[in-house]
Amino acid sequence: MSHRIINMTVRDVRFPTSLEQHGSDAMVSLYRFTRRINKRTRLRPLLFLSTLQHTDPDYSVAYVVLDTESGLKGFGFTFTLGKGTEIVVSAVQALAGLVVGKSLEEIVSNFREFYRLLTSDGQMRWLGPEKGVIQLATAAVLNAVWDLWARAEDKPLWKLLVDMDPKKIVSCIDFRYITDVLTEEEALDILVKAQEGKQQRENQMLNEGYPAYTTSCAWLGYTDQQLKQLCTDALKSGWTKFKVKVGADLQDDMRRCRLIRQMIGPNSTLMIDANQRWDVDEAISWVSALAEVKPLWIEEPTSPDDILGHAAISKALAPLGIGVATGEQCHNRVMFKQFLQASALQFVQIDSCRVGSVNENLAVLLMAHKFRVPVCPHAGGVGLCELVQHLILFDYICVSADLNNRMCEYVDHLHEHFRSPVVIKNAHYMAPKDAGYSCEMFESSVETHQYPEGGVWKLHMKK
Amino acid sequence: MSHRIINMTVRDVRFPTSLEQHGSDAMVSLYRFTRRINKRTRLRPLLFLSTLQHTDPDYSVAYVVLDTESGLKGFGFTFTLGKGTEIVVSAVQALAGLVVGKSLEEIVSNFREFYRLLTSDGQMRWLGPEKGVIQLATAAVLNAVWDLWARAEDKPLWKLLVDMDPKKIVSCIDFRYITDVLTEEEALDILVKAQEGKQQRENQMLNEGYPAYTTSCAWLGYTDQQLKQLCTDALKSGWTKFKVKVGADLQDDMRRCRLIRQMIGPNSTLMIDANQRWDVDEAISWVSALAEVKPLWIEEPTSPDDILGHAAISKALAPLGIGVATGEQCHNRVMFKQFLQASALQFVQIDSCRVGSVNENLAVLLMAHKFRVPVCPHAGGVGLCELVQHLILFDYICVSADLNNRMCEYVDHLHEHFRSPVVIKNAHYMAPKDAGYSCEMFESSVETHQYPEGGVWKLHMKK
Repeated sequence: MSHRIINMTVRDVRFPTSLEQHGSDAMVSLYRFTRRINKRTRLRPLLFLSTLQHTDPDYSVAYVVLDTESGLKGFGFTFTLGKGTEIVVSAVQALAGLVVGKSLEEIVSNFREFYRLLTSDGQMRWLGPEKGVIQLATAAVLNAVWDLWARAEDKPLWKLLVDMDPKKIVSCIDFRYITDVLTEEEALDILVKAQEGKQQRENQMLNEGYPAYTTSCAWLGYTDQQLKQLCTDALKSGWTKFKVKVGADLQDDMRRCRLIRQMIGPNSTLMIDANQRWDVDEAISWVSALAEVKPLWIEEPTSPDDILGHAAISKALAPLGIGVATGEQCHNRVMFKQFLQASALQFVQIDSCRVGSVNENLAVLLMAHKFRVPVCPHAGGVGLCELVQHLILFDYICVSADLNNRMCEYVDHLHEHFRSPVVIKNAHYMAPKDAGYSCEMFESSVETHQYPEGGVWKLHMKK
Repeated sequence: MSHRIINMTVRDVRFPTSLEQHGSDAMVSLYRFTRRINKRTRLRPLLFLSTLQHTDPDYSVAYVVLDTESGLKGFGFTFTLGKGTEIVVSAVQALAGLVVGKSLEEIVSNFREFYRLLTSDGQMRWLGPEKGVIQLATAAVLNAVWDLWARAEDKPLWKLLVDMDPKKIVSCIDFRYITDVLTEEEALDILVKAQEGKQQRENQMLNEGYPAYTTSCAWLGYTDQQLKQLCTDALKSGWTKFKVKVGADLQDDMRRCRLIRQMIGPNSTLMIDANQRWDVDEAISWVSALAEVKPLWIEEPTSPDDILGHAAISKALAPLGIGVATGEQCHNRVMFKQFLQASALQFVQIDSCRVGSVNENLAVLLMAHKFRVPVCPHAGGVGLCELVQHLILFDYICVSADLNNRMCEYVDHLHEHFRSPVVIKNAHYMAPKDAGYSCEMFESSVETHQYPEGGVWKLHMKK
């Protein structure tokens, strides 16, 4: 039965996360709100991706559904922060002509060519190339194609990748513009070598899961009492790795970081995240002042485009034992290549919805391995945890074979809208079992949150 | 009378440049078509921005009109290649809420803040930041604001800038993420120092104009006879600087480059342009093979994101006396900063519609000056010549004070749709005299070419 794609729909789905913060103290109402909605992992959810740069986000997706002749469907999305999701929807629609009519078999028999078809359209390439809105749209479409492929093989995506012949994996990657760092032959060599011990690592992941860290304990503006309570709860639930938001006020950062370090002890891991707050010199001085709390990394110290800036920061902070992490807004493999070449990061933070889907993330994982830089995925938002867990499982089983200084971000928020939500046990991501890429949302959730016509939005607009 | 913005419209305007290439040999019909439509400068127009990457473009704009309370209008646009223009239109519409209701006075009294308002919206920033579709939209909107400002002052934009107090100029620039290379104080210092001799240079520009080069003589696929005829015509019209497209076939490149060099002689300038065709190593070997024709620069040898790749190419080609030029797809000041820091280019090619309008281009001009790298603007397409001439006039009069190895691209195409088209004399851009930023198109041209409802498109769709 042919999985020929006969239709592609895309919808603007937004969760009114910003609107819940009524009242004068946004943080207090946020705290109340999030306590109410989720007690599963005893963590407070991340509602702000960044309280500094992306204030009051409405976590959203451009949600793609592929219909095939066989009846099988593929689901995919890219993540956005509310306003402007309609622009991404428009970009996905512009790609439809390149997708509808093709069969899954045709696509995956030369996935590299299909990737290029989407990213190198003669007219649309000008709008990127391979960056911003058009790349987010590519991610949404290709995520749906990968979901469809995994469903067609009746496997979760990570397992599809783990079982795939290394030659086939390599054939999904566009090596254009990265051959000075990674050739097809080198990529194949990495994958073939990592076949050793693969089954053992797969078993390990099925039993123990992949280590996670939490971003939910130490938001800007929390009181000491709140911080203590959140840390106590998290430690009880088995969390040992904590990320703290910094960058608004140095004294406040020092207070919160010291308190957290005190709570979690010297053997737990502390990371700090500035969400692009600083220029280069300010980043160095600010983070140096926080060195006493021994953060493993400073995340997004400056512009996500500033490779040389990150390199300067990395060099300055290395003597303090602090690494630099970035990647959630790194827009393609050419940028990741340079971050690695320039020793501009010590932790690669891949994102499932920013670059060109699994195809481009495979290139990033392989380059990171070549440079021996650990990959610690970005997650949170809507569905980012659901997707990226597949990639990091593949990375461990088939590429890195290493868990040292590696962990995947976790935020306990909005999972209830997904048909196959993440499962966290003892601060580990448990390997997904359902077929697909975990992208499918409940149709009722999609309909209710469609913008602006969904019930949730009608309600909010009436107020 | 207040110039409060009371309305902003944006339209999708496309010129069916690809559709004219009917027949089996696109290049031949292109040649015929372009001979027919324009004999003014005796140059054949550039219809292909790149025959390699952006085949069959329909040169297009997202065209913005600002209406003010006073009745004064501002016109602006960004340039696209056809398909996907509707995505940029959608992005411009998403910015409208930040623009409508503001007065020109309010905007320009703190233009930096307004720039940040557009580029750092809490929700929309995620779609960039400052890159791709959302930055193209920012460019369109801000180009219209600058046009409005120049009209309000009854000056062509270049003259508005030339007469502006250096402190005011600096207040238009967002220095965020570039202070490690250029601080506000340094920028001011550059502008103040360049006040010396300013009047003399302005007079010189008014008399002689700014030197231009042509891209229209040596397209891929032209026969020897065509090349000879085009060169002969161009030389007769005073052209001394020529750009040749390369990268499809090395033997063909050598043939055409040798022929052109023979035609124009050793004292004319020859540049070559690969439109991102190669990976790093291939770029080095290919261009090395063309060294005998003594090109001044190789333009866009590889991915526009690959700073370190351009640096490697620059280093390898320096002993051959060949520089690297890039910038038309360089998406913001943070990228230009790094290209300069890494000695990754020897010619900065600013574009009037890719980055954040005049505001961001001012930052680029000043950084280029600090690094003593000449600026040679990219132009062509629709209206890019009209706009960028203002910026390079300002650069000469108020920043660089230098014409050595400096020239502005010129392509003789689609100027007839503009109310204040460029004037070329003896291969020089003559300083524009009309008030504004030369963005205004004839309303009849806009209506006829609106996509898909304009008359031109209705006609093509009937065929």
